[in-house]
Amino acid sequence: MSNGLFITIEGGEGAGKSSLIQHLANTLQHMGRSVVVTREPGGIMIAEKIRSIILDTEHTMMDARTEALLYAAARRQHLVEKVVPALKEGKVVLCDRFVDSSLAYQGHARGLGMEEVWGINQFAIGDVMPDLTLYMDVSPEVGLSRISRSPDREVNRLDLERQSFHEKVREGYRLLLQKFPDRIRFVNAEEEPEKVLEAANAILKDRLEGI
Amino acid sequence: MSNGLFITIEGGEGAGKSSLIQHLANTLQHMGRSVVVTREPGGIMIAEKIRSIILDTEHTMMDARTEALLYAAARRQHLVEKVVPALKEGKVVLCDRFVDSSLAYQGHARGLGMEEVWGINQFAIGDVMPDLTLYMDVSPEVGLSRISRSPDREVNRLDLERQSFHEKVREGYRLLLQKFPDRIRFVNAEEEPEKVLEAANAILKDRLEGI
Repeated sequence: MSNGLFITIEGGEGAGKSSLIQHLANTLQHMGRSVVVTREPGGIMIAEKIRSIILDTEHTMMDARTEALLYAAARRQHLVEKVVPALKEGKVVLCDRFVDSSLAYQGHARGLGMEEVWGINQFAIGDVMPDLTLYMDVSPEVGLSRISRSPDREVNRLDLERQSFHEKVREGYRLLLQKFPDRIRFVNAEEEPEKVLEAANAILKDRLEGI
Repeated sequence: MSNGLFITIEGGEGAGKSSLIQHLANTLQHMGRSVVVTREPGGIMIAEKIRSIILDTEHTMMDARTEALLYAAARRQHLVEKVVPALKEGKVVLCDRFVDSSLAYQGHARGLGMEEVWGINQFAIGDVMPDLTLYMDVSPEVGLSRISRSPDREVNRLDLERQSFHEKVREGYRLLLQKFPDRIRFVNAEEEPEKVLEAANAILKDRLEGI
């Protein structure tokens, strides 16, 4: 039986992560792999409850460090209950956002520092790091305008941040790309959907052949 | 205006922390100090919601690291919204449990390691450490039997732990006493209430004179 494979998809708001993940899941299933598509909190009761605290638009008093600790807590529970069991069964786990989101959003954009945010996340995830991370790069202008056109997406507390915040998020991801060039791969998410999918598929196949 | 003073009260279940805190608050008020009595989550909306996740008896799947991160998150929010503002106003803050609880319960008793739990708590509290910590020492037999006789105390998820867990908690506190002999002071909480109060008062006055 093949080993599990942990793939995370990262990017700013409106980068198109959800639809890419669905396409990648299809590709992998056609290749005969058993796939689990998830995102934090991933339907895990405890993690869902934590997420509802984080995203509540009433919680304007929430401190940035509280937020970072809550993300780490939800991440831990989702990892233990869902990701690790699936990997142990040899499945491919496709996860919408993971530790890099905390590093880019809380570490860099909120200014807590990537090293500090990495510390609490290392406590949360131990040695379970993604085998591959696809970073979908999109400018805040393009990303946020896509969201505003999407009728079925609820606005949450993070969407309400200023554009400068989303610029910082992008900058954070670009720093992560430099730090982890082997694990994180760049995808230009401003291209046409077919091209984005093609690029992601090529990276994925490259990675699968490298196992 | 005098500086604020941050005093935390620690100990296992049934040590008598609440009633001691009330007595100490009276003593301090008679000395002309402005006192804030609190406990995590301290009526802070976000911290209350976090606490309700931690203590929900349904959450049997909760991982020990998730729990530790949630405590740290609630601690951060309570600190930022309530403790630090009171200290800045020169008040004495009497807090029922603080970082030592996480070190004893999650770090030692749950076996996560004090150093690791200290790491996420350092992220949460920064340099805001108590000026004085009173550790109320009681054996689990005595402490738990006191709780079972108390009709107005609701049973929570931690009360349901085995006695061996509470033994480990006590062991954890005793390790902390050795590590922080200047900050943490021992109070024998198995003595008669008057004697406990007398001992605590003496430590408190000693500390106040030392400022």
